Amino acid sequence: MAIANPSPDRAYEVRCETPELTCVCPVTGQPDFATVRIRYVPDASIVELKSLKLYLWSYRDQGVYHEAVTNQILDDLVDALGPRSMTVVTDWLVRGGIHTVVEASHPVPPG
Amino acid sequence: MAIANPSPDRAYEVRCETPELTCVCPVTGQPDFATVRIRYVPDASIVELKSLKLYLWSYRDQGVYHEAVTNQILDDLVDALGPRSMTVVTDWLVRGGIHTVVEASHPVPPG
Amino acid sequence: MAIANPSPDRAYEVRCETPELTCVCPVTGQPDFATVRIRYVPDASIVELKSLKLYLWSYRDQGVYHEAVTNQILDDLVDALGPRSMTVVTDWLVRGGIHTVVEASHPVPPG
Amino acid sequence: MAIANPSPDRAYEVRCETPELTCVCPVTGQPDFATVRIRYVPDASIVELKSLKLYLWSYRDQGVYHEAVTNQILDDLVDALGPRSMTVVTDWLVRGGIHTVVEASHPVPPG
Amino acid sequence: MAIANPSPDRAYEVRCETPELTCVCPVTGQPDFATVRIRYVPDASIVELKSLKLYLWSYRDQGVYHEAVTNQILDDLVDALGPRSMTVVTDWLVRGGIHTVVEASHPVPPG
Amino acid sequence: MAIANPSPDRAYEVRCETPELTCVCPVTGQPDFATVRIRYVPDASIVELKSLKLYLWSYRDQGVYHEAVTNQILDDLVDALGPRSMTVVTDWLVRGGIHTVVEASHPVPPG
Amino acid sequence: MAIANPSPDRAYEVRCETPELTCVCPVTGQPDFATVRIRYVPDASIVELKSLKLYLWSYRDQGVYHEAVTNQILDDLVDALGPRSMTVVTDWLVRGGIHTVVEASHPVPPG
Amino acid sequence: MAIANPSPDRAYEVRCETPELTCVCPVTGQPDFATVRIRYVPDASIVELKSLKLYLWSYRDQGVYHEAVTNQILDDLVDALGPRSMTVVTDWLVRGGIHTVVEASHPVPPG
Amino acid sequence: MAIANPSPDRAYEVRCETPELTCVCPVTGQPDFATVRIRYVPDASIVELKSLKLYLWSYRDQGVYHEAVTNQILDDLVDALGPRSMTVVTDWLVRGGIHTVVEASHPVPPG
Amino acid sequence: MAIANPSPDRAYEVRCETPELTCVCPVTGQPDFATVRIRYVPDASIVELKSLKLYLWSYRDQGVYHEAVTNQILDDLVDALGPRSMTVVTDWLVRGGIHTVVEASHPVPPG
Repeated sequence: MAIANPSPDRAYEVRCETPELTCVCPVTGQPDFATVRIRYVPDASIVELKSLKLYLWSYRDQGVYHEAVTNQILDDLVDALGPRSMTVVTDWLVRGGIHTVVEASHPVPPG
Repeated sequence: MAIANPSPDRAYEVRCETPELTCVCPVTGQPDFATVRIRYVPDASIVELKSLKLYLWSYRDQGVYHEAVTNQILDDLVDALGPRSMTVVTDWLVRGGIHTVVEASHPVPPG
Repeated sequence: MAIANPSPDRAYEVRCETPELTCVCPVTGQPDFATVRIRYVPDASIVELKSLKLYLWSYRDQGVYHEAVTNQILDDLVDALGPRSMTVVTDWLVRGGIHTVVEASHPVPPG
Repeated sequence: MAIANPSPDRAYEVRCETPELTCVCPVTGQPDFATVRIRYVPDASIVELKSLKLYLWSYRDQGVYHEAVTNQILDDLVDALGPRSMTVVTDWLVRGGIHTVVEASHPVPPG
Repeated sequence: MAIANPSPDRAYEVRCETPELTCVCPVTGQPDFATVRIRYVPDASIVELKSLKLYLWSYRDQGVYHEAVTNQILDDLVDALGPRSMTVVTDWLVRGGIHTVVEASHPVPPG
Repeated sequence: MAIANPSPDRAYEVRCETPELTCVCPVTGQPDFATVRIRYVPDASIVELKSLKLYLWSYRDQGVYHEAVTNQILDDLVDALGPRSMTVVTDWLVRGGIHTVVEASHPVPPG
Repeated sequence: MAIANPSPDRAYEVRCETPELTCVCPVTGQPDFATVRIRYVPDASIVELKSLKLYLWSYRDQGVYHEAVTNQILDDLVDALGPRSMTVVTDWLVRGGIHTVVEASHPVPPG
Repeated sequence: MAIANPSPDRAYEVRCETPELTCVCPVTGQPDFATVRIRYVPDASIVELKSLKLYLWSYRDQGVYHEAVTNQILDDLVDALGPRSMTVVTDWLVRGGIHTVVEASHPVPPG
Repeated sequence: MAIANPSPDRAYEVRCETPELTCVCPVTGQPDFATVRIRYVPDASIVELKSLKLYLWSYRDQGVYHEAVTNQILDDLVDALGPRSMTVVTDWLVRGGIHTVVEASHPVPPG
Repeated sequence: MAIANPSPDRAYEVRCETPELTCVCPVTGQPDFATVRIRYVPDASIVELKSLKLYLWSYRDQGVYHEAVTNQILDDLVDALGPRSMTVVTDWLVRGGIHTVVEASHPVPPG
């Protein structure tokens, strides 16, 4: 998923957003849908968009909780890119009248 | 109302919002309506959406002031989830030409 | 619910809208929420806002389908006001990922 | 309130809007607030904005129903300007959770 | 998918919208996403929301063109509900920089 | 202001809009500001944008009423371009709390 | 204007907003209109909405500058409620082409 | 650019929109940018999105007037697809303070 | 331009905004248009709106760069009002496809 | 690209934005489109808008990654203007369902 950062000496930010994440509710088995927002300060690598898309696509048949999938995406992208810092936000379509957003960062911001 | 946090080691944020809170004005007896916004950093537990919905539903016939119901929801959710931190916002439909919002946090943020 | 129309000789339009309709799902028993939009051309009577509010309030504990409550409101207001024409629209909060709107008119507009 | 139309031979439209209408509820005695929208096709006269403003100001202490004030403004402006056609819309701030709009035209459009 | 229309004698309109349609591109095999808007004038039957949701869910693994899936949904709902009239609109997320919307009606409106 | 229409055989529409019209109030001498919207179906000629801009610029020091300048722009553009049809709309910044829009067409649309 | 705070031990925020403030320009004598936004952290008392409404109503015939009325509302509410902190914002309809907002806080925030 | 229409017997509408049209001003030689909106009722063929994209890309180095490119796109798509009807709209970024939109249809709608 | 501050003992903020600034480009001689936003914490004086309007009007025939006029307005208002602090923002209509905003403050905020 | 700063003694901010950046994807060879936002605190020089436009135009036929072009624009503008500080943001049209934004600053803000 990683390609070489063309400006590794400067700490700058990249933000990616896609409304095309879908997975399956582990309790009811029915589809869930989310917009994913990723922002990170790259170190040696930047994300390659096509493989990011394929990676997100891999959740299509998985049964996962909102909180778990958010942390999993963050863990996988941190492993793949080794960023100086990264935040992943998932913003889910309404279930049971409730709209849910989950936001996780690495490293955890102070306080 | 609580289920186990799948990533208890990382401080991350969950935000839930529903426009479906209704209770009764303790003075006039007529219905009041609010959108509720909850954001929290979970510790050992995350909120289960179905029981959160049922909990909010329980206010339907209660006569309560805007400020009281907001603090009550915060107290109940802090008791049930034991979060690292939590904020509850209620945003009420216009009464007497006035739009009211109440926001309470635990622990109280420094001033 | 009716008071005398101060300008009965002119065909003019009145539009009322409130986000404060709630009833109960006849299948699941859980609360439903809708915005109601009423527009009508009065004849001898116009609607009195306080009794309109009380009338809509009366649905709070009723178990009714979206389509049924919309037609019922139209029937009741047509009975009470005898308007030259009237349209009732109900716009419901999301259930099962689906946002539903129902619109009924009296007399039925030519198709 | 009228000044000579500079292009009396062409049927063209003028639209004026102001959020500054206030009057008093004839039942409760408390202030009401509305945005007024006027659109008309002038004949010999166009409205002079300063006197229109003073005219609307004259409602500040009057106790009138929404429907009555709308028809009264239409009647007065039709008398003053003799337009080919005119529509007056009043859009009122929420009372009792209900947002009301009244629209009247001269001559009444075919229906 | 059909339940009895509670007001079969009046021609009124129902509008349903969900952002949760997903299928697969028949050329590239990658997921596509759409919002579906259905509006219809029921005759003897109205749509049951839960089975509508399950029906739309059935496209999740199908490889279909935008135009084909839109006409298929229209055909299936017309078969199931026998409406006086129906329109189906699908509004697709961007592919190749192009945002596509398809709208089909039964019976075809006069042109 | 006119250049040759590259597709004179087809009736198609051109819409131009600029927020850069300013003139002077003929009563108070103070500046007025408007957005101008022009839409027309060209015949032999289309408008050249640079000369349109210079033409609108020529109002900068003129003292004119809203209604007069709108009809004047329409007359001048109809003279210069000989369109199949044209509409000019001017949308003025608030004066005395009133927002005014003037719309004139050639030929006058049937009423 | 004050009622007892149901949660006096927690520092939480209440925000009220109404578009219904009107007073009179002390120079020209003509009406002015503003939206008022109040946010405060209550101590022993919270504001009672009906008396807040009556209080704001009392400005209807007063001739006051924008800056003076804003500071006066803040002073009066601080006197009545004794809040831990309070901010009053008034947002005025356009006069002379200029939109004005005034914001005052007690105690004055540092720097 | 054409593929077979999967529902050739029904008159339905397809709408495509892309903000990615760029060409060159034939007078100044500098780049121009537009959003293109195409809507059509297909007959035997529907447009294939990838070749539509390549077709629009072909304007990148052409020097063309706004009106000419709009009519050319309409002519080319009508030739390629033989639709029952088609409309092409181009919406151009501001030049000289003026925002321009061109809309052409085949066959020309009755006036 | 200054009148006495009615609450000189409290540091509070005033914000004024008008879309009615126009001057002339010193290079091309053509008109430029901007919205001006002024926010300040008054000391002994507040700005009088009518003279502020006249002051901004004085730029109508001046040829000035965006950056120069912004700093000039700030200098003149600081001279006239002696505020505790002041920021002037000018937001200019598009020129050459570029939208420009200039923001200057006195005293310069720490960086 | 630089002209003399008319107020070199004050640290103030200039913000420029244009939706007219286009380059070519170095992998697929197809056009990419972005909005560019530049904000800087000038020192001795400010940017001249016409040459900024020509500079951005120079990317039209270059094959560059999103991250590389953003850092290149920042480097070139810092070289040309020697600002006290500068941030460049590029906001790209959707590719592969993903919307990307890149933001780089000089000097790098403390993290």
